[in-house]
Amino acid sequence: MDNCIFCKIAAGKIPSNTVYEDEDFRVILDLNQGMKGHMLILPKEHYENFYELPDELAAKAMILAKKLSLAARKAFEKAGTPLDGLNILQNNGEAAGQSVMHYHLHVLPRIKGDDPLFPLWSEAAMESGDMKALAESLKGALES
Amino acid sequence: MDNCIFCKIAAGKIPSNTVYEDEDFRVILDLNQGMKGHMLILPKEHYENFYELPDELAAKAMILAKKLSLAARKAFEKAGTPLDGLNILQNNGEAAGQSVMHYHLHVLPRIKGDDPLFPLWSEAAMESGDMKALAESLKGALES
Repeated sequence: MDNCIFCKIAAGKIPSNTVYEDEDFRVILDLNQGMKGHMLILPKEHYENFYELPDELAAKAMILAKKLSLAARKAFEKAGTPLDGLNILQNNGEAAGQSVMHYHLHVLPRIKGDDPLFPLWSEAAMESGDMKALAESLKGALES
Repeated sequence: MDNCIFCKIAAGKIPSNTVYEDEDFRVILDLNQGMKGHMLILPKEHYENFYELPDELAAKAMILAKKLSLAARKAFEKAGTPLDGLNILQNNGEAAGQSVMHYHLHVLPRIKGDDPLFPLWSEAAMESGDMKALAESLKGALES
C-alpha cells in the first residue's frame, strides 16, 4: 500500500535493522527498543490486521516467531545476559495498542525486573550503532 | 503431566467453560475475565512454553487464534457491543508474566477505554452463569 510505512520497510525501500528475511516476511528490530531485542515480524504483503491475514501466513508467522525466540535466547545467553522470559504479542485496532495499520507480530525478550507493564517499549531507545550490532547478533544466532 | 492444572483442564478432568475442542487443543474462558471474552488456547499435550511447542502445533494454534478472533468479533457484534480491538498474547517465563507452566495462547477482546495496561485480567471476575452464556455465544459464533 502506497502510504504504509511497514510496506515500505518490508520492501526494503526504507532502511531497517533487519534480522531475517524470506519471500513472505521481513523481521526488523523495532526502532523503539523498550525491551532490548524487541523484534517485529512484518509480512511483505499488506494486511491491516490478524482478521485479514491468510491462515497460511498466520501459521508461517508463528513458526518464524518460535525460531526468533530460540535465536534471541541463544544470542542473549552468548552475550552473558540470559533471558528470563519472552512475550509474543499482536495488537489489532487502536484500542488494543496497534499504531501501524499493517499486521505485525511482536517478539519481546524479557529480563527479570524490567517494567512488567505494557506498552513495554515506551521508554528506552538505543543508539543506532547498538541496533546494528544487536541485529547482527540475532542474525548470527538464527543461522547457528 | 500429573501436577499440571492446564493438563487436567485440557483433558476435561477439571470442568471449564470450553469454547472449542479438537484433537490437539481445548479453548477455555480464562477464569479471570478481566477482559470479557478472554480465551486461552491450551494444547492437550504438555509443553512448558513456546520454545518446546512443536512447529506443527504452533502453526495450528495461530490459525485457531484467528478463527477465535473472528468468532469473538462476530459474537460481540451480535451482542450489541462491537469490539474495538483484540490482542494475541503469549507469555514465557515468570519474568514475562507466565503463571502456569503449560504453554497457552491468550486471545483478548478489547473495548475502547478499557484499561490499556497489562496484565489485563487482574480485576474483574464474572459470575459463572455469565461465563457459561459467554462460552455459548462464542461457540455459536465459531460454528456460524
